[in-house]
Amino acid sequence: MTLSSLLRAAPTVDLAAIDSRSTPGFAGDKAAGEAALAALAAPLADVQERLFAEGVSGGRRSVLVVLQGMDTSGKDGTIRKVVGMVDPQGVRIFSFKRPTSEELAHDFLWRIRRRLPEPGLIGVFNRSHYEDVLIVRVHDLVPREAWERRYDAINAFEAELAEAGTTVIKVFLHISATDQEERLAARLEERAKHWKWDSADLDERRYWSAYQEAYEAVLTRCNPDSAPWYVVPAGRKWYRNWAVATLLHETLTAMGPTWPDPGLDVPALRARLQDEKPG
Amino acid sequence: MTLSSLLRAAPTVDLAAIDSRSTPGFAGDKAAGEAALAALAAPLADVQERLFAEGVSGGRRSVLVVLQGMDTSGKDGTIRKVVGMVDPQGVRIFSFKRPTSEELAHDFLWRIRRRLPEPGLIGVFNRSHYEDVLIVRVHDLVPREAWERRYDAINAFEAELAEAGTTVIKVFLHISATDQEERLAARLEERAKHWKWDSADLDERRYWSAYQEAYEAVLTRCNPDSAPWYVVPAGRKWYRNWAVATLLHETLTAMGPTWPDPGLDVPALRARLQDEKPG
Repeated sequence: MTLSSLLRAAPTVDLAAIDSRSTPGFAGDKAAGEAALAALAAPLADVQERLFAEGVSGGRRSVLVVLQGMDTSGKDGTIRKVVGMVDPQGVRIFSFKRPTSEELAHDFLWRIRRRLPEPGLIGVFNRSHYEDVLIVRVHDLVPREAWERRYDAINAFEAELAEAGTTVIKVFLHISATDQEERLAARLEERAKHWKWDSADLDERRYWSAYQEAYEAVLTRCNPDSAPWYVVPAGRKWYRNWAVATLLHETLTAMGPTWPDPGLDVPALRARLQDEKPG
Repeated sequence: MTLSSLLRAAPTVDLAAIDSRSTPGFAGDKAAGEAALAALAAPLADVQERLFAEGVSGGRRSVLVVLQGMDTSGKDGTIRKVVGMVDPQGVRIFSFKRPTSEELAHDFLWRIRRRLPEPGLIGVFNRSHYEDVLIVRVHDLVPREAWERRYDAINAFEAELAEAGTTVIKVFLHISATDQEERLAARLEERAKHWKWDSADLDERRYWSAYQEAYEAVLTRCNPDSAPWYVVPAGRKWYRNWAVATLLHETLTAMGPTWPDPGLDVPALRARLQDEKPG
Protein backbone atom coordinates (compact mmCIF):
# COMPACT_ATOMS: atom_id res chain seq x y z
CA MET A 1 0.00 0.00 0.00
CA THR A 2 1.37 3.41 -0.87
CA LEU A 3 1.62 6.14 1.72
CA SER A 4 -0.42 8.28 -0.65
CA SER A 5 -3.40 5.97 -0.31
CA LEU A 6 -2.89 5.67 3.45
CA LEU A 7 -2.82 9.43 4.11
CA ARG A 8 -5.37 10.50 1.53
CA ALA A 9 -8.12 12.51 3.20
CA ALA A 10 -11.27 10.43 3.70
CA PRO A 11 -14.59 11.56 2.16
CA THR A 12 -15.48 12.91 5.60
CA VAL A 13 -12.72 14.02 7.93
CA ASP A 14 -12.87 14.31 11.71
CA LEU A 15 -9.55 15.89 12.61
CA ALA A 16 -10.06 15.42 16.35
CA ALA A 17 -10.04 11.67 15.73
CA ILE A 18 -6.59 11.72 14.10
CA ASP A 19 -3.68 11.46 16.52
CA SER A 20 -1.16 14.13 15.52
CA ARG A 21 1.65 12.06 16.99
CA SER A 22 0.78 8.88 15.13
CA THR A 23 3.07 7.61 12.39
CA PRO A 24 0.90 5.81 9.82
CA GLY A 25 2.87 3.67 7.40
CA PHE A 26 6.05 3.86 9.44
CA ALA A 27 6.87 1.31 12.12
CA GLY A 28 10.24 2.60 13.33
CA ASP A 29 11.38 5.30 15.71
CA LYS A 30 12.90 8.74 15.14
CA ALA A 31 16.36 7.45 14.22
CA ALA A 32 14.86 5.03 11.73
CA GLY A 33 12.68 7.82 10.32
CA GLU A 34 15.65 10.10 9.81
CA ALA A 35 17.56 7.28 8.12
CA ALA A 36 14.59 6.56 5.87
CA LEU A 37 14.41 10.24 4.92
CA ALA A 38 18.13 10.31 4.09
CA ALA A 39 17.68 7.19 1.96
CA LEU A 40 15.06 9.05 -0.09
CA ALA A 41 17.48 11.82 -1.07
CA ALA A 42 19.01 10.09 -4.08
CA PRO A 43 15.82 8.62 -5.61
CA LEU A 44 13.95 11.89 -5.05
CA ALA A 45 16.72 13.94 -6.67
CA ASP A 46 16.83 11.50 -9.58
CA VAL A 47 13.15 11.67 -10.43
CA GLN A 48 13.11 15.46 -9.90
CA GLU A 49 15.95 15.84 -12.37
CA ARG A 50 14.07 13.75 -14.92
CA LEU A 51 11.05 16.03 -14.58
CA PHE A 52 13.35 19.04 -14.97
CA ALA A 53 15.00 17.54 -18.05
CA GLU A 54 11.58 16.86 -19.50
CA GLY A 55 10.65 20.52 -18.99
CA VAL A 56 13.83 21.76 -20.64
CA SER A 57 13.11 19.48 -23.56
CA GLY A 58 9.64 20.75 -24.34
CA GLY A 59 7.56 18.80 -21.83
CA ARG A 60 4.67 20.66 -20.23
CA ARG A 61 4.33 18.81 -16.93
CA SER A 62 4.99 20.23 -13.49
CA VAL A 63 4.10 19.51 -9.87
CA LEU A 64 2.49 21.80 -7.34
CA VAL A 65 2.73 21.01 -3.64
CA VAL A 66 0.30 23.01 -1.52
CA LEU A 67 1.31 23.14 2.14
CA GLN A 68 -1.27 24.15 4.71
CA GLY A 69 -1.50 23.85 8.47
CA MET A 70 -2.05 25.79 11.66
CA ASP A 71 0.67 28.13 12.95
CA THR A 72 3.72 26.11 14.13
CA SER A 73 2.56 23.04 12.20
CA GLY A 74 5.90 23.03 10.40
CA LYS A 75 5.37 24.39 6.91
CA ASP A 76 8.74 26.19 6.94
CA GLY A 77 10.52 23.20 8.46
CA THR A 78 9.05 20.87 5.85
CA ILE A 79 10.32 23.10 3.09
CA ARG A 80 13.78 23.28 4.64
CA LYS A 81 14.08 19.55 5.26
CA VAL A 82 12.14 18.05 2.33
CA VAL A 83 12.14 20.55 -0.51
CA GLY A 84 15.79 21.23 0.45
CA MET A 85 16.59 17.66 -0.63
CA VAL A 86 16.27 18.43 -4.34
CA ASP A 87 18.07 20.77 -6.72
CA PRO A 88 17.05 24.32 -5.79
CA GLN A 89 16.96 25.23 -9.49
CA GLY A 90 14.18 22.68 -9.90
CA VAL A 91 11.82 24.23 -7.38
CA ARG A 92 9.80 27.45 -7.14
CA ILE A 93 8.69 28.22 -3.63
CA PHE A 94 6.23 30.91 -2.86
CA SER A 95 5.03 31.98 0.53
CA PHE A 96 1.63 33.66 0.50
CA LYS A 97 1.21 36.36 3.13
CA ARG A 98 -1.68 38.66 3.92
CA PRO A 99 -2.85 39.91 0.50
CA THR A 100 -1.69 43.34 -0.62
CA SER A 101 -4.22 45.96 -1.66
CA GLU A 102 -3.34 45.24 -5.30
CA GLU A 103 -4.02 41.55 -4.75
CA LEU A 104 -7.29 42.28 -2.97
CA ALA A 105 -8.40 44.34 -5.95
CA HIS A 106 -8.41 41.15 -8.03
CA ASP A 107 -10.16 37.81 -7.81
CA PHE A 108 -8.64 35.67 -5.00
CA LEU A 109 -7.00 33.33 -7.53
CA TRP A 110 -5.20 36.14 -9.37
CA ARG A 111 -2.12 36.16 -7.17
CA ILE A 112 -2.07 32.37 -7.14
CA ARG A 113 -2.03 32.04 -10.92
CA ARG A 114 1.00 34.31 -11.10
CA ARG A 115 3.05 31.89 -9.00
CA LEU A 116 2.31 28.61 -10.73
CA PRO A 117 5.36 26.46 -11.52
CA GLU A 118 6.73 26.49 -15.04
CA PRO A 119 7.10 23.19 -16.93
CA GLY A 120 9.63 20.83 -15.36
CA LEU A 121 9.48 22.46 -11.96
CA ILE A 122 8.15 21.54 -8.56
CA GLY A 123 6.16 24.48 -7.25
CA VAL A 124 5.67 24.75 -3.52
CA PHE A 125 3.02 26.97 -1.99
CA ASN A 126 3.63 27.86 1.65
CA ARG A 127 -0.03 28.71 2.34
CA SER A 128 -2.17 29.19 -0.74
CA HIS A 129 -5.59 29.96 -2.17
CA TYR A 130 -6.97 27.85 0.67
CA GLU A 131 -6.41 30.75 3.03
CA ASP A 132 -9.35 32.32 1.22
CA VAL A 133 -11.64 29.68 2.71
CA LEU A 134 -9.72 29.36 6.01
CA ILE A 135 -8.79 32.62 7.71
CA VAL A 136 -11.29 34.40 5.48
CA ARG A 137 -14.09 32.04 6.57
CA VAL A 138 -13.12 31.99 10.24
CA HIS A 139 -13.07 35.78 10.46
CA ASP A 140 -15.75 36.45 7.84
CA LEU A 141 -13.39 38.71 5.91
CA VAL A 142 -15.83 38.49 3.02
CA PRO A 143 -19.56 37.69 3.26
CA ARG A 144 -20.43 34.03 3.69
CA GLU A 145 -21.98 33.78 0.22
CA ALA A 146 -18.67 34.97 -1.24
CA TRP A 147 -16.46 32.42 0.51
CA GLU A 148 -19.05 29.69 -0.01
CA ARG A 149 -18.65 30.11 -3.79
CA ARG A 150 -14.89 29.68 -3.51
CA TYR A 151 -14.93 25.93 -2.93
CA ASP A 152 -16.32 25.42 -6.41
CA ALA A 153 -13.99 28.06 -7.83
CA ILE A 154 -11.01 26.23 -6.30
CA ASN A 155 -12.17 22.90 -7.69
CA ALA A 156 -12.55 24.41 -11.15
CA PHE A 157 -9.14 26.10 -10.90
CA GLU A 158 -7.39 22.92 -9.82
CA ALA A 159 -9.09 20.92 -12.57
CA GLU A 160 -7.73 23.45 -15.01
CA LEU A 161 -4.24 22.95 -13.59
CA ALA A 162 -4.48 19.19 -13.99
CA GLU A 163 -5.63 19.74 -17.56
CA ALA A 164 -2.59 21.94 -18.22
CA GLY A 165 -0.17 19.27 -16.98
CA THR A 166 0.33 20.31 -13.36
CA THR A 167 0.02 17.51 -10.84
CA VAL A 168 -1.35 19.05 -7.66
CA ILE A 169 -0.87 17.48 -4.25
CA LYS A 170 -2.16 19.17 -1.13
CA VAL A 171 -0.66 18.46 2.26
CA PHE A 172 -2.33 19.36 5.53
CA LEU A 173 0.12 19.26 8.42
CA HIS A 174 -2.03 18.15 11.31
CA ILE A 175 -1.11 19.18 14.85
CA SER A 176 -3.13 19.36 18.05
CA ALA A 177 -3.73 22.46 20.14
CA THR A 178 -1.36 20.94 22.69
CA ASP A 179 1.38 20.50 20.08
CA GLN A 180 0.96 24.14 19.20
CA GLU A 181 1.13 25.26 22.82
CA GLU A 182 4.38 23.34 23.29
CA ARG A 183 5.89 24.83 20.15
CA LEU A 184 4.91 28.38 21.00
CA ALA A 185 6.34 27.86 24.50
CA ALA A 186 9.58 26.61 22.94
CA ARG A 187 9.82 29.77 20.85
CA LEU A 188 9.63 31.84 24.01
CA GLU A 189 12.30 29.80 25.76
CA GLU A 190 14.88 30.06 22.98
CA ARG A 191 16.39 33.46 22.20
CA ALA A 192 17.30 32.40 18.66
CA LYS A 193 13.61 31.73 17.97
CA HIS A 194 12.22 35.02 19.23
CA TRP A 195 12.17 36.50 15.73
CA LYS A 196 9.54 33.92 14.80
CA TRP A 197 7.23 35.06 17.57
CA ASP A 198 4.03 36.75 16.53
CA SER A 199 1.53 37.53 19.24
CA ALA A 200 -1.19 37.34 16.60
CA ASP A 201 -0.65 33.56 16.77
CA LEU A 202 -1.97 33.68 20.34
CA ASP A 203 -5.04 35.60 19.23
CA GLU A 204 -5.71 33.02 16.53
CA ARG A 205 -5.63 30.19 19.07
CA ARG A 206 -9.01 31.42 20.31
CA TYR A 207 -10.43 30.30 16.97
CA TRP A 208 -8.88 26.83 17.05
CA SER A 209 -12.18 24.94 16.67
CA ALA A 210 -13.37 27.24 13.92
CA TYR A 211 -10.13 26.61 12.02
CA GLN A 212 -10.44 22.86 12.47
CA GLU A 213 -13.96 23.05 11.03
CA ALA A 214 -12.77 25.20 8.16
CA TYR A 215 -10.02 22.66 7.41
CA GLU A 216 -12.50 19.80 7.56
CA ALA A 217 -14.66 21.62 5.03
CA VAL A 218 -11.69 22.09 2.71
CA LEU A 219 -10.54 18.48 3.06
CA THR A 220 -14.06 17.30 2.30
CA ARG A 221 -15.14 19.68 -0.41
CA CYS A 222 -11.93 20.10 -2.43
CA ASN A 223 -10.54 16.59 -2.56
CA PRO A 224 -10.93 15.14 -6.08
CA ASP A 225 -8.57 12.40 -7.25
CA SER A 226 -6.99 14.92 -9.61
CA ALA A 227 -5.97 17.23 -6.75
CA PRO A 228 -5.95 15.14 -3.60
CA TRP A 229 -5.51 16.21 0.03
CA TYR A 230 -3.21 14.29 2.33
CA VAL A 231 -3.50 14.57 6.09
CA VAL A 232 -0.01 14.23 7.56
CA PRO A 233 0.21 13.84 11.34
CA ALA A 234 2.81 16.48 12.14
CA GLY A 235 3.25 16.22 15.88
CA ARG A 236 6.53 14.41 15.27
CA LYS A 237 8.76 16.39 12.94
CA TRP A 238 10.78 13.39 11.75
CA TYR A 239 7.61 11.58 10.68
CA ARG A 240 6.24 14.69 8.98
CA ASN A 241 9.44 15.06 6.95
CA TRP A 242 9.57 11.42 5.95
CA ALA A 243 5.88 11.40 5.05
CA VAL A 244 5.98 14.52 2.87
CA ALA A 245 9.16 13.34 1.13
CA THR A 246 7.52 9.99 0.49
CA LEU A 247 4.33 11.58 -0.86
CA LEU A 248 6.42 13.72 -3.19
CA HIS A 249 8.49 10.76 -4.29
CA GLU A 250 5.44 8.61 -4.92
CA THR A 251 3.80 11.40 -6.91
CA LEU A 252 6.84 12.00 -9.10
CA THR A 253 7.40 8.30 -9.61
CA ALA A 254 3.79 7.82 -10.70
CA MET A 255 4.27 10.59 -13.27
CA GLY A 256 7.20 8.55 -14.59
CA PRO A 257 9.32 11.22 -16.26
CA THR A 258 11.98 9.66 -18.47
CA TRP A 259 15.23 11.09 -19.81
CA PRO A 260 14.47 13.02 -22.98
CA ASP A 261 16.02 11.62 -26.13
CA PRO A 262 17.16 14.45 -28.39
CA GLY A 263 18.33 11.84 -30.91
CA LEU A 264 21.98 12.87 -30.92
CA ASP A 265 24.28 11.49 -33.60
CA VAL A 266 26.87 10.59 -30.98
CA PRO A 267 29.68 9.33 -33.26
CA ALA A 268 29.45 12.42 -35.46
CA LEU A 269 29.40 14.79 -32.49
CA ARG A 270 32.27 12.96 -30.82
CA ALA A 271 34.31 13.34 -34.02
CA ARG A 272 33.44 17.02 -34.26
CA LEU A 273 34.43 17.59 -30.63
CA GLN A 274 37.83 15.98 -31.25
CA ASP A 275 38.50 17.63 -34.61
CA GLU A 276 37.60 21.19 -33.78
CA LYS A 277 40.22 22.59 -31.50
CA PRO A 278 39.34 25.58 -29.34
CA GLY A 279 40.10 28.85 -31.04
CA MET B 1 44.45 33.60 5.70
CA THR B 2 40.91 33.46 4.47
CA LEU B 3 40.00 31.67 1.26
CA SER B 4 38.42 34.93 0.13
CA SER B 5 41.79 36.69 0.17
CA LEU B 6 43.48 33.71 -1.47
CA LEU B 7 41.03 33.45 -4.40
CA ARG B 8 40.38 37.15 -4.90
CA ALA B 9 41.15 38.11 -8.50
CA ALA B 10 44.49 39.91 -8.77
CA PRO B 11 44.68 43.43 -10.27
CA THR B 12 45.77 41.78 -13.52
CA VAL B 13 44.63 38.28 -14.29
CA ASP B 14 46.25 35.78 -16.65
CA LEU B 15 43.82 32.88 -16.71
CA ALA B 16 46.17 30.64 -18.69
CA ALA B 17 48.56 30.78 -15.74
CA ILE B 18 45.98 29.44 -13.28
CA ASP B 19 45.79 25.64 -13.10
CA SER B 20 42.10 24.71 -13.23
CA ARG B 21 42.84 21.52 -11.31
CA SER B 22 44.71 23.21 -8.48
CA THR B 23 43.15 23.37 -5.02
CA PRO B 24 44.38 26.57 -3.36
CA GLY B 25 43.81 26.67 0.37
CA PHE B 26 42.94 23.00 0.58
CA ALA B 27 45.60 20.38 1.23
CA GLY B 28 43.50 17.20 1.23
CA ASP B 29 42.07 14.92 -1.42
CA LYS B 30 38.55 14.46 -2.77
CA ALA B 31 37.27 12.52 0.23
CA ALA B 32 38.64 15.15 2.59
CA GLY B 33 37.09 17.88 0.45
CA GLU B 34 33.69 16.26 0.54
CA ALA B 35 33.94 15.86 4.30
CA ALA B 36 34.96 19.51 4.65
CA LEU B 37 31.97 20.53 2.57
CA ALA B 38 29.61 18.44 4.71
CA ALA B 39 31.10 20.02 7.83
CA LEU B 40 30.15 23.46 6.48
CA ALA B 41 26.46 22.58 6.23
CA ALA B 42 25.50 23.44 9.81
CA PRO B 43 27.50 26.68 10.18
CA LEU B 44 26.37 27.87 6.75
CA ALA B 45 22.73 27.14 7.50
CA ASP B 46 23.07 28.91 10.86
CA VAL B 47 24.45 32.16 9.50
CA GLN B 48 22.01 32.08 6.57
CA GLU B 49 19.11 31.76 9.00
CA ARG B 50 20.39 34.73 10.98
CA LEU B 51 20.46 36.83 7.82
CA PHE B 52 16.93 35.66 7.00
CA ALA B 53 15.73 36.49 10.52
CA GLU B 54 17.31 39.92 10.21
CA GLY B 55 15.38 40.48 6.96
CA VAL B 56 12.07 39.40 8.49
CA SER B 57 12.72 41.81 11.36
CA GLY B 58 13.23 44.92 9.28
CA GLY B 59 16.86 44.54 8.28
CA ARG B 60 17.77 45.65 4.76
CA ARG B 61 20.81 43.49 4.06
CA SER B 62 21.06 40.73 1.49
CA VAL B 63 23.71 38.82 -0.43
CA LEU B 64 24.07 38.39 -4.16
CA VAL B 65 26.24 35.61 -5.55
CA VAL B 66 27.05 36.04 -9.24
CA LEU B 67 28.12 32.79 -10.89
CA GLN B 68 29.94 32.94 -14.20
CA GLY B 69 32.02 30.49 -16.19
CA MET B 70 32.40 28.84 -19.56
CA ASP B 71 29.92 26.15 -20.62
CA THR B 72 30.34 23.01 -18.48
CA SER B 73 32.26 24.95 -15.81
CA GLY B 74 29.70 23.77 -13.27
CA LYS B 75 27.36 26.66 -12.52
CA ASP B 76 24.36 24.35 -12.22
CA GLY B 77 26.28 21.81 -10.16
CA THR B 78 27.50 24.50 -7.79
CA ILE B 79 23.96 25.66 -7.20
CA ARG B 80 22.77 22.10 -6.59
CA LYS B 81 25.58 21.20 -4.20
CA VAL B 82 26.31 24.51 -2.44
CA VAL B 83 23.18 26.64 -2.60
CA GLY B 84 21.27 23.42 -1.90
CA MET B 85 22.92 23.33 1.54
CA VAL B 86 20.81 26.17 2.91
CA ASP B 87 17.10 26.68 3.45
CA PRO B 88 15.49 27.01 0.01
CA GLN B 89 13.17 29.69 1.38
CA GLY B 90 16.25 31.81 2.08
CA VAL B 91 17.52 31.87 -1.49
CA ARG B 92 16.33 33.37 -4.77
CA ILE B 93 17.99 31.81 -7.77
CA PHE B 94 17.67 33.25 -11.20
CA SER B 95 19.09 31.84 -14.37
CA PHE B 96 19.64 34.43 -17.10
CA LYS B 97 19.14 33.12 -20.61
CA ARG B 98 19.35 34.79 -23.98
CA PRO B 99 17.47 38.10 -23.52
CA THR B 100 13.87 38.27 -24.72
CA SER B 101 12.82 40.98 -27.12
CA GLU B 102 11.19 42.81 -24.22
CA GLU B 103 14.46 42.68 -22.28
CA LEU B 104 16.44 43.85 -25.30
CA ALA B 105 14.15 46.85 -25.58
CA HIS B 106 15.48 48.06 -22.22
CA ASP B 107 18.90 48.94 -20.84
CA PHE B 108 20.94 45.78 -20.22
CA LEU B 109 20.60 46.17 -16.45
CA TRP B 110 16.81 46.34 -16.54
CA ARG B 111 16.23 42.60 -16.34
CA ILE B 112 18.94 42.29 -13.70
CA ARG B 113 17.37 44.84 -11.38
CA ARG B 114 14.10 42.93 -11.43
CA ARG B 115 15.76 39.84 -9.95
CA LEU B 116 17.71 41.33 -7.08
CA PRO B 117 17.31 39.55 -3.74
CA GLU B 118 14.94 41.00 -1.17
CA PRO B 119 16.24 41.80 2.32
CA GLY B 120 17.37 38.75 4.26
CA LEU B 121 17.84 36.59 1.19
CA ILE B 122 20.78 35.15 -0.68
CA GLY B 123 20.30 35.88 -4.35
CA VAL B 124 22.09 33.66 -6.84
CA PHE B 125 22.57 34.67 -10.46
CA ASN B 126 23.31 31.79 -12.81
CA ARG B 127 24.92 34.00 -15.46
CA SER B 128 24.24 37.71 -15.07
CA HIS B 129 24.77 41.21 -16.41
CA TYR B 130 28.34 40.11 -17.16
CA GLU B 131 27.06 38.27 -20.22
CA ASP B 132 26.60 41.75 -21.67
CA VAL B 133 30.38 42.18 -21.74
CA LEU B 134 31.17 38.51 -22.44
CA ILE B 135 29.13 36.87 -25.21
CA VAL B 136 28.10 40.34 -26.37
CA ARG B 137 31.73 41.43 -26.64
CA VAL B 138 32.99 38.21 -28.19
CA HIS B 139 30.34 38.29 -30.90
CA ASP B 140 30.02 42.07 -31.17
CA LEU B 141 26.28 41.84 -30.57
CA VAL B 142 26.36 45.59 -29.97
CA PRO B 143 28.97 48.05 -31.25
CA ARG B 144 32.25 48.16 -29.38
CA GLU B 145 31.61 51.64 -27.99
CA ALA B 146 28.36 50.35 -26.49
CA TRP B 147 29.88 47.38 -24.65
CA GLU B 148 32.92 49.42 -23.66
CA ARG B 149 30.66 51.76 -21.69
CA ARG B 150 29.14 48.83 -19.80
CA TYR B 151 32.14 48.19 -17.54
CA ASP B 152 31.60 51.57 -15.91
CA ALA B 153 27.85 51.04 -15.88
CA ILE B 154 28.35 47.73 -14.08
CA ASN B 155 30.68 49.29 -11.52
CA ALA B 156 28.18 52.05 -10.84
CA PHE B 157 25.33 49.54 -10.57
CA GLU B 158 27.21 47.31 -8.15
CA ALA B 159 28.25 50.31 -6.03
CA GLU B 160 24.59 51.18 -5.80
CA LEU B 161 23.82 47.64 -4.62
CA ALA B 162 26.46 47.84 -1.90
CA GLU B 163 24.98 51.17 -0.84
CA ALA B 164 21.53 49.59 -0.60
CA GLY B 165 22.79 46.81 1.68
CA THR B 166 23.45 44.01 -0.80
CA THR B 167 26.81 42.30 -0.40
CA VAL B 168 27.88 41.19 -3.86
CA ILE B 169 30.34 38.36 -4.45
CA LYS B 170 31.26 37.27 -7.93
CA VAL B 171 32.57 33.81 -8.63
CA PHE B 172 34.32 32.82 -11.84
CA LEU B 173 34.46 29.05 -12.24
CA HIS B 174 37.72 28.52 -14.07
CA ILE B 175 38.15 25.50 -16.32
CA SER B 176 40.55 24.74 -19.15
CA ALA B 177 39.61 23.95 -22.71
CA THR B 178 40.66 20.36 -21.99
CA ASP B 179 38.36 20.18 -18.96
CA GLN B 180 35.56 21.34 -21.21
CA GLU B 181 36.34 18.80 -23.90
CA GLU B 182 36.27 15.99 -21.31
CA ARG B 183 32.96 17.17 -19.91
CA LEU B 184 31.31 17.55 -23.30
CA ALA B 185 32.57 14.07 -24.22
CA ALA B 186 31.08 12.71 -20.98
CA ARG B 187 27.71 14.21 -21.90
CA LEU B 188 27.80 12.31 -25.17
CA GLU B 189 28.69 9.03 -23.48
CA GLU B 190 25.86 9.10 -20.95
CA ARG B 191 22.27 8.78 -22.16
CA ALA B 192 20.93 10.51 -19.02
CA LYS B 193 22.99 13.58 -19.89
CA HIS B 194 21.94 13.93 -23.52
CA TRP B 195 19.25 16.47 -22.61
CA LYS B 196 22.03 18.85 -21.56
CA TRP B 197 23.68 18.69 -24.94
CA ASP B 198 23.64 21.84 -27.03
CA SER B 199 25.65 21.82 -30.22
CA ALA B 200 25.96 25.60 -29.90
CA ASP B 201 28.48 24.84 -27.13
CA LEU B 202 30.73 23.32 -29.80
CA ASP B 203 30.43 26.44 -31.93
CA GLU B 204 31.35 28.60 -28.96
CA ARG B 205 34.53 26.59 -28.37
CA ARG B 206 35.98 28.25 -31.47
CA TYR B 207 35.96 31.49 -29.51
CA TRP B 208 37.70 30.09 -26.43
CA SER B 209 40.56 32.61 -26.44
CA ALA B 210 38.25 35.53 -27.06
CA TYR B 211 36.15 34.45 -24.08
CA GLN B 212 39.22 34.12 -21.87
CA GLU B 213 40.23 37.65 -22.82
CA ALA B 214 36.73 38.93 -22.17
CA TYR B 215 36.79 37.28 -18.74
CA GLU B 216 40.19 38.76 -17.98
CA ALA B 217 38.82 42.21 -18.84
CA VAL B 218 35.88 41.71 -16.49
CA LEU B 219 38.03 40.38 -13.66
CA THR B 220 40.34 43.35 -14.06
CA ARG B 221 37.94 46.19 -14.70
CA CYS B 222 35.04 45.29 -12.40
CA ASN B 223 36.78 44.14 -9.24
CA PRO B 224 36.39 46.73 -6.48
CA ASP B 225 36.59 45.66 -2.83
CA SER B 226 32.87 46.33 -2.54
CA ALA B 227 32.01 43.76 -5.25
CA PRO B 228 34.97 41.42 -5.54
CA TRP B 229 35.65 38.69 -8.08
CA TYR B 230 36.93 35.32 -6.95
CA VAL B 231 38.63 32.95 -9.38
CA VAL B 232 37.75 29.39 -8.35
CA PRO B 233 39.69 26.60 -10.07
CA ALA B 234 36.81 24.36 -11.13
CA GLY B 235 38.52 21.44 -12.81
CA ARG B 236 37.85 19.36 -9.70
CA LYS B 237 34.19 19.51 -8.74
CA TRP B 238 34.75 18.65 -5.08
CA TYR B 239 37.18 21.56 -4.70
CA ARG B 240 34.87 23.93 -6.55
CA ASN B 241 32.00 23.05 -4.19
CA TRP B 242 34.08 23.40 -1.05
CA ALA B 243 35.59 26.68 -2.26
CA VAL B 244 32.28 28.33 -3.16
CA ALA B 245 30.67 27.15 0.08
CA THR B 246 33.64 28.55 2.00
CA LEU B 247 33.50 31.89 0.16
CA LEU B 248 29.81 32.15 0.95
CA HIS B 249 30.35 31.21 4.58
CA GLU B 250 33.19 33.70 4.98
CA THR B 251 31.09 36.43 3.39
CA LEU B 252 28.08 35.80 5.60
CA THR B 253 30.22 35.50 8.71
CA ALA B 254 31.91 38.81 7.97
CA MET B 255 28.48 40.43 7.68
CA GLY B 256 27.83 39.11 11.18
CA PRO B 257 24.04 38.90 11.26
CA THR B 258 22.77 38.41 14.80
CA TRP B 259 19.44 37.09 16.05
CA PRO B 260 16.98 39.96 16.11
CA ASP B 261 15.72 40.92 19.54
CA PRO B 262 12.06 41.86 19.33
CA GLY B 263 12.17 42.58 23.09
CA LEU B 264 9.54 40.03 24.09
CA ASP B 265 8.10 40.12 27.59
CA VAL B 266 8.64 36.38 27.97
CA PRO B 267 7.04 35.83 31.41
CA ALA B 268 3.91 37.74 30.38
CA LEU B 269 3.63 35.90 27.07
CA ARG B 270 4.21 32.55 28.76
CA ALA B 271 1.42 33.31 31.21
CA ARG B 272 -0.89 34.36 28.41
CA LEU B 273 -0.14 31.18 26.47
CA GLN B 274 -1.00 29.06 29.51
CA ASP B 275 -4.10 31.00 30.54
CA GLU B 276 -5.82 31.35 27.20
CA LYS B 277 -7.13 27.99 26.20
CA PRO B 278 -7.82 27.34 22.52
CA GLY B 279 -11.38 28.18 21.57
